[in-house]
Amino acid sequence: MTQVNEQGGPETGATGRTLAKALFTPGAVALVGASADESKNTARPLRFMRKHGYAGRVFPINAGRAEVMGLQAYPSVAALPDTIDHAFVMVPGRQVAEVLEQCAARGASVVTVFSDGFAELGEAGMAAQRALAARAKELGVRLLGPNSIGVVDVHSGAILSVNAVLEADTLRAGGISVASQSGSMLGALLSRGAARGFGFAKLVSVGNESDIGVGELVDLLVDDDATEVILLFLETIRDAAVLGPALRRARAAGKPVLVYKLGRSAQGEALAQSHTGALAGNDAAVDAFLRKHGAIRVEMLETLFEAAPLARRYAADIPALPRNPRIAVVTTTGGGAATVVDRLGLANVEAVAPPTEFIAHMAARGVRIRQTPIIDLTLAATSAQYRDLVEQMIQSQWCDAVLCVVGSSAQFHPQLAVRPIVEASAQRGKPLLSFLAPEATQSLELLQAAGVPAFRTPEACADALACLFRAARTRNDPVEAPAPARWPSALPTQGDLSEFEAAVAFAELGVPIAPMALVREGALQHAVPYPIVAKICSRDILHKTEIGGVEVGVRDNEELARAAARLLENARQSAPAARVDGILVQRMESRLLELMLGYRRDPLVGPMVMLSAGGITAELHRDVSLRPAPVSVAEAHDMIGEVRSTQLIRGFRGLPRGDVDALAHAIVGFSRLAVMQGADIAEAEINPLFVRAEGVVGVDCLLRLAAPQHAF
Amino acid sequence: MTQVNEQGGPETGATGRTLAKALFTPGAVALVGASADESKNTARPLRFMRKHGYAGRVFPINAGRAEVMGLQAYPSVAALPDTIDHAFVMVPGRQVAEVLEQCAARGASVVTVFSDGFAELGEAGMAAQRALAARAKELGVRLLGPNSIGVVDVHSGAILSVNAVLEADTLRAGGISVASQSGSMLGALLSRGAARGFGFAKLVSVGNESDIGVGELVDLLVDDDATEVILLFLETIRDAAVLGPALRRARAAGKPVLVYKLGRSAQGEALAQSHTGALAGNDAAVDAFLRKHGAIRVEMLETLFEAAPLARRYAADIPALPRNPRIAVVTTTGGGAATVVDRLGLANVEAVAPPTEFIAHMAARGVRIRQTPIIDLTLAATSAQYRDLVEQMIQSQWCDAVLCVVGSSAQFHPQLAVRPIVEASAQRGKPLLSFLAPEATQSLELLQAAGVPAFRTPEACADALACLFRAARTRNDPVEAPAPARWPSALPTQGDLSEFEAAVAFAELGVPIAPMALVREGALQHAVPYPIVAKICSRDILHKTEIGGVEVGVRDNEELARAAARLLENARQSAPAARVDGILVQRMESRLLELMLGYRRDPLVGPMVMLSAGGITAELHRDVSLRPAPVSVAEAHDMIGEVRSTQLIRGFRGLPRGDVDALAHAIVGFSRLAVMQGADIAEAEINPLFVRAEGVVGVDCLLRLAAPQHAF
Repeated sequence: MTQVNEQGGPETGATGRTLAKALFTPGAVALVGASADESKNTARPLRFMRKHGYAGRVFPINAGRAEVMGLQAYPSVAALPDTIDHAFVMVPGRQVAEVLEQCAARGASVVTVFSDGFAELGEAGMAAQRALAARAKELGVRLLGPNSIGVVDVHSGAILSVNAVLEADTLRAGGISVASQSGSMLGALLSRGAARGFGFAKLVSVGNESDIGVGELVDLLVDDDATEVILLFLETIRDAAVLGPALRRARAAGKPVLVYKLGRSAQGEALAQSHTGALAGNDAAVDAFLRKHGAIRVEMLETLFEAAPLARRYAADIPALPRNPRIAVVTTTGGGAATVVDRLGLANVEAVAPPTEFIAHMAARGVRIRQTPIIDLTLAATSAQYRDLVEQMIQSQWCDAVLCVVGSSAQFHPQLAVRPIVEASAQRGKPLLSFLAPEATQSLELLQAAGVPAFRTPEACADALACLFRAARTRNDPVEAPAPARWPSALPTQGDLSEFEAAVAFAELGVPIAPMALVREGALQHAVPYPIVAKICSRDILHKTEIGGVEVGVRDNEELARAAARLLENARQSAPAARVDGILVQRMESRLLELMLGYRRDPLVGPMVMLSAGGITAELHRDVSLRPAPVSVAEAHDMIGEVRSTQLIRGFRGLPRGDVDALAHAIVGFSRLAVMQGADIAEAEINPLFVRAEGVVGVDCLLRLAAPQHAF
Repeated sequence: MTQVNEQGGPETGATGRTLAKALFTPGAVALVGASADESKNTARPLRFMRKHGYAGRVFPINAGRAEVMGLQAYPSVAALPDTIDHAFVMVPGRQVAEVLEQCAARGASVVTVFSDGFAELGEAGMAAQRALAARAKELGVRLLGPNSIGVVDVHSGAILSVNAVLEADTLRAGGISVASQSGSMLGALLSRGAARGFGFAKLVSVGNESDIGVGELVDLLVDDDATEVILLFLETIRDAAVLGPALRRARAAGKPVLVYKLGRSAQGEALAQSHTGALAGNDAAVDAFLRKHGAIRVEMLETLFEAAPLARRYAADIPALPRNPRIAVVTTTGGGAATVVDRLGLANVEAVAPPTEFIAHMAARGVRIRQTPIIDLTLAATSAQYRDLVEQMIQSQWCDAVLCVVGSSAQFHPQLAVRPIVEASAQRGKPLLSFLAPEATQSLELLQAAGVPAFRTPEACADALACLFRAARTRNDPVEAPAPARWPSALPTQGDLSEFEAAVAFAELGVPIAPMALVREGALQHAVPYPIVAKICSRDILHKTEIGGVEVGVRDNEELARAAARLLENARQSAPAARVDGILVQRMESRLLELMLGYRRDPLVGPMVMLSAGGITAELHRDVSLRPAPVSVAEAHDMIGEVRSTQLIRGFRGLPRGDVDALAHAIVGFSRLAVMQGADIAEAEINPLFVRAEGVVGVDCLLRLAAPQHAF
């Protein structure tokens, strides 16, 4: 895959497996700025590599010492006796550029820059970072960072990192890899995961992503044999064009990507921006982007790793999971199970009671259960019966996942408490997971060791299950390359379009627009049937109503003449400098429902199409659905389903039904603005779009082109 | 305080301190059904009491043995040589009635019934439970349960419980008391809290609450010297009339009551109903009830105890906390702090950057900070500077709480990491709390031991802070006893009212209703100005529009005559049996906004008043606010603020403003249906209620009286 970096050209440095080798398992590394004082952060990488068994060559670079912790030290990278694969740079930011030159000269494929003082500091730092990245590219060196806390390969002990969490005497190797935009949270996740018995493969702090970004890392990890599941801690998205395809590759490879992304709230979003120097995006757009490309976004921090076994174990099943999942719940603590089921209800995941036949089936096997959504075994069952019940549930057709909620026995008899679940987990075929109501560290570890997804809080448990099913709901349509649309040659290719021009462009995409004509004073003849709406037509007047630029209910030619005169006079008064193309006459249209269709480029994740309630409802009640553009017909139907107001044309209280298929096709056509050839669309809107019993029709159109140099 | 129990009469048994003594610290107890087989649940209470140092007298009751674990056993309570204060009953449910008689005869003030087989099993069990409770009342014995896992006084070791969690070798005594409607969750909470170093006072499983309920327990705990904070795990509310005042007493006494209640989702609510045999209520109504009475409802299970130190420490400050709190955040992990701040944003709690003067103030003290909502001390500060910064924040005016988020040092240098926070916590005056990003059990314990609220997950941390401020937002108005309204003597006192009668009742409460008159065919003269609406007026026709029972825009007497004939004919056709009072003529009214005002009795928490968007908006977009009725003017204004649609008359996009004060007064008047003397209102509605630039006016009225025997 060709990577495209910030500078827009192809990479000249290592990529793919070559990059992975130098990045994760280098044969020879330089530690630039390694201290001999063990209390210093900069002494850590060498100590960590020793402790965790790194077998490659390590060269400490220290201008003031000939030896560091028993190893010969060198005054500079230039003074090294041999080539290196990877350098970890801990010197002050202003020295990094010079170090980069020397690393290139000594053959380094990757330079990881811990040093800060770059984009996170604002404009001046951003300039230094751009220069550094540009130079690295010229030199054919790949950069991780700057402002990266480093990179760790747990399996080989290659620890190019100052992360304090690596002080731990043992690091458990396993199949979880993590890429994080927050260095400190990388450590926090590792420590929390390790305390729960999770094993890790690769850990990467991406820092400012001046070159190697999260997307490329996901790509590398998909190809990494040790990695089974990929966790991302994100504050922003800097490389959507790379990340999207990488996420799809991961999904295709059966390696789930779990994402915790800051920015659920506007406050969190603003923060990520100020904290990282990143662009602010619309979290809803990012969410739609992640979903489209198959990532599993979790709500809660702890879910990020607690959900890993669930996602890993059932990755292959995800596409087959139903859209409206039914969960079977078996427990020894009714109250404990209820805490999960209550949360699941908030996520629209249903706990179902067993059907009569299943109750009879179990009774014949000696297990008596009741027909309730929570099957309480408190007093009744032996361990063998518990196991049998769970196995039979896994094999049954009436549920799509099995949740076991364990009560006090998890605390006092961990072996006994989890044994039925562990044994039943040999049955595959549908997700099996567990929540332990009391404090029960040992039970959690036993379940975890057996590969059974186990959760410490009811909220994380419900979050994980809901996220898994939400990912299952994602359309598995291949990303079609829809036939690109061609920009009508009669239209301008930059700046704001007039409403008439915008309507021409939308019609070109197959979006029905109310019949209209552009007429001029003194030449008002047209073929649009009365009654009509007459509007001033000018690319310079966006808010027509406010300047008296719209007249509705015009009934004949005579009224049109008078209306046109008023419209033009109003425009002359209120916007004397506006370029007026004439008067737009448009048929008055009826409707069952008003909606709004919008298109914009999200600064982080690119072209988005938006369907929302019309008028003020969207704003007051946040009744909106977003998707990356272009969308398929199926995605368009999903969007319609997500806008609550469309219930009014989908059978709500017996109201007349609207033409939902026509609406879906209009969304699809409009979303093809994203693949328009010959013009670069910055923003577009049909507001309102009328939905009728037959067909839909747009009655007000807006389209704004990007300045020619703009490129996403 | 006089208790009113299920049977409606005053209690005959112990109450108040007398009850508390027998319930929590009895001098002599009988363990009815105590087993000599240590592996049995029923052997536990005796073993637990020995282990935890109970100093009173214990009488095992065992029909088959003369001795149980070295104590003399008795074949029955009747055979006891002495009186007892409290009996814990573990025999099969069918034997409980007989045991109760014997306990009464031996002087027991309280009988705690572990036995199940009562209300949780449905109708038959419910009858047995009612009989048991009625008999206990006759005998002057108070009942805890049935289906209670028991009651524990940690300080004295009086453990009348089979809860497995009490197997622990030590129980830490402290100031937290818990009452739970789930026996198993009582254990889960204790085990989780104990693992975090929390100490407990009283633990009570209320079971089916046939007599002693959560409300009375809160009342007892308010008076309990050992109890500093009260935690409730609720599945339903069975005793709102007792619980409300008890919660207010707790608040007045500075003993915060934290509540986790199941039923956030419809699924959770349905479950609580089936699981406990309780009535289903509307969770929104319960939430409003809890809030009104000053309880702090948390969202997440772990918050229930993690928030205890925060609530306890700042209980006295809660009323003074502002409605729009500003949080100062100081951290060594920007990403970790962001995880909390992002969640706080979702709860509308703002993280604020320090003002310029404070930055200068700190610079003068040698601490350099930036003007960002998260103050990152990663590289800069010493421990002394950290402490100084937090102290200065606590003393400053620009923030209302201080959140410290600790990074990896919490894991590896717990003493160092938490010392600045612990030291700064000596400064009182505003909430100080902490979240630890990595796994850091020891740091959590150190903070907890020092009384500093410390959280393990960002979600629980944000939840606790948001809940605290939400409680602060609760109106501190005393529960006024509003002048009771008197039911107009002309109106019926049971059954459904006609619209005209309902309008008369609402007008009596001061709610403006459109001018109207009731006329009859052949006697259509009236003084209502035209144009008018004419409606069929019948207490038997609720859906007038659907049977052609409404004509709008009637312009004069002649049109009215024709309209009246049509209306009466339609009624005869569609509802031949309906009692028709005549034709209601009502002035056509204009409006800026349509709302709906409703009143109903929630089955759990009683009279509620509801304001919602008009038409279908309330249903589609859930745009509703609820309060226990009656409400004050200030509460009515809060309700208006909670209904998003009212933004349309409160300055949204320059739209004309509606008469919000008149609306508030209409809500207050309408809510006085709850204190109407002379009639018992089951349900009432004004739909729509028109809000105008001046005044409000109801244009459709509905009122249904309860059957006479109904009493809440």
